[in-house]
Amino acid sequence: MPAETPTGPPAELDPALAQKILDAQPFSRLLGARITAFGAGAATLELDIREEHRQQNGYVHGGVLSYAADNALTFAAGAALGPAVLTAGFSIQYVRPAVGAVLRARASVVHAGRRQAVVRCDLLTVDAAGAETLCAVAQGTVLSSG
Amino acid sequence: MPAETPTGPPAELDPALAQKILDAQPFSRLLGARITAFGAGAATLELDIREEHRQQNGYVHGGVLSYAADNALTFAAGAALGPAVLTAGFSIQYVRPAVGAVLRARASVVHAGRRQAVVRCDLLTVDAAGAETLCAVAQGTVLSSG
Amino acid sequence: MPAETPTGPPAELDPALAQKILDAQPFSRLLGARITAFGAGAATLELDIREEHRQQNGYVHGGVLSYAADNALTFAAGAALGPAVLTAGFSIQYVRPAVGAVLRARASVVHAGRRQAVVRCDLLTVDAAGAETLCAVAQGTVLSSG
Amino acid sequence: MPAETPTGPPAELDPALAQKILDAQPFSRLLGARITAFGAGAATLELDIREEHRQQNGYVHGGVLSYAADNALTFAAGAALGPAVLTAGFSIQYVRPAVGAVLRARASVVHAGRRQAVVRCDLLTVDAAGAETLCAVAQGTVLSSG
Repeated sequence: MPAETPTGPPAELDPALAQKILDAQPFSRLLGARITAFGAGAATLELDIREEHRQQNGYVHGGVLSYAADNALTFAAGAALGPAVLTAGFSIQYVRPAVGAVLRARASVVHAGRRQAVVRCDLLTVDAAGAETLCAVAQGTVLSSG
Repeated sequence: MPAETPTGPPAELDPALAQKILDAQPFSRLLGARITAFGAGAATLELDIREEHRQQNGYVHGGVLSYAADNALTFAAGAALGPAVLTAGFSIQYVRPAVGAVLRARASVVHAGRRQAVVRCDLLTVDAAGAETLCAVAQGTVLSSG
Repeated sequence: MPAETPTGPPAELDPALAQKILDAQPFSRLLGARITAFGAGAATLELDIREEHRQQNGYVHGGVLSYAADNALTFAAGAALGPAVLTAGFSIQYVRPAVGAVLRARASVVHAGRRQAVVRCDLLTVDAAGAETLCAVAQGTVLSSG
Repeated sequence: MPAETPTGPPAELDPALAQKILDAQPFSRLLGARITAFGAGAATLELDIREEHRQQNGYVHGGVLSYAADNALTFAAGAALGPAVLTAGFSIQYVRPAVGAVLRARASVVHAGRRQAVVRCDLLTVDAAGAETLCAVAQGTVLSSG
């Protein structure tokens, strides 16, 4: 998610502002993403898994997982660096095919300096009973652009 | 894109079969992706950039770029390894904000063995005059699952 | 660390065999590496930081950190997959300049299947009093070559 | 190679200064590295493959490849951004076991902005007749710290 400079006021990010920025992303609205936890260098992004998120075998498409990783990493960094951030890049390793009711991307900052944050993210599917299964892991670097 | 085992016959992949597999991915249909080149260890995937692909500042969302990288890498590997492949993971570095008419992901295999292929991908935007601008680069490893 | 097929017997890896494989790596002997924990999908590799490990500003060279990540990831995977493994690749993000008495690479498998393991690694420096400071994080995929 | 702020004058990097910085790295001296090309957003680093660079099966250790990638990426970025750079991280995928007389890391900047450069690197072994064989590929992001 490059050039994540929000157009809102240069305030500290809080959960309400984070959700507002997410809602200002047409692609996140298309996928149905929501922020379910935010603050203290961490962010959780979720979406209800729908037919349109799948690949040809019925699993959640890797591109949905990588979207969720990219966005959760960036928001977690925003929780540490403030709203003006720019994601330099990330790496994702797939663990197993993703099936379930909800996709959950749980990201937390492992270190934030003045200029950059390094962030890790777990990608999990959640079944109807609430049980989590890890389907991918990611890590990346996010720069402060303020 | 984990578990990319197509349900079709275990034939060699050709451009028509590659497009057919892409069309069997609901998420790729949602994003409007198409395969515009395929073969000899390379694949190009494109989509017309639409409002719904954007983030809050009007740029193409990083998640769209990472989707295109994931899928182009996997198809390029399929052009070398055959249709039964499984993407282990990839890394993406963003170069500049992505704006333009078309997003083009051009992937080519740098080496394919019996069990895995290593693939690089350039992510480019194309303007109305056909000029390309690099917006991200990716590389990853795809395993043969046959 | 590609082609990490040990020449020893095809036994399960245990701490003694892991240390024996490490000792059979001339590069690990050159750097002075040792395995300080091993088993249950995890491995810790350490080395005493010496003048020859440094870059031009006196910090531990990034290449020493990436060596430690590569090797710790591979050994942790060996603790889950058995001795015949082959590292597909990894990603490393640097967190802060590395200074201290000891470099510690603590790797643990986040998921191991039949064919591959996905592993994360923390790179820490340890001062004379035993206090740890995170200096880099890594993650990678290791394949079973058995 | 984090915190690659050279201690020399804040001049533009040229091949002689690049070699001087390399020579100021004890770890690069330990490994016998040299810069064989430098300039215009590119750098080539080489070392003669010695017994002490190997792992247990006689191949060049993955840690030597990742050292070469890290350092070549950073120097290539320095050729574009100037001497004050700091490597954020990189990803490396191994292609095949590395054997040969010389290890060559050829890095080139794919894009350099004001604040960061994105760099790719090919890792090759060179046999006695001068023939190159690709053994790994890498890509990373380097920040300007000036």
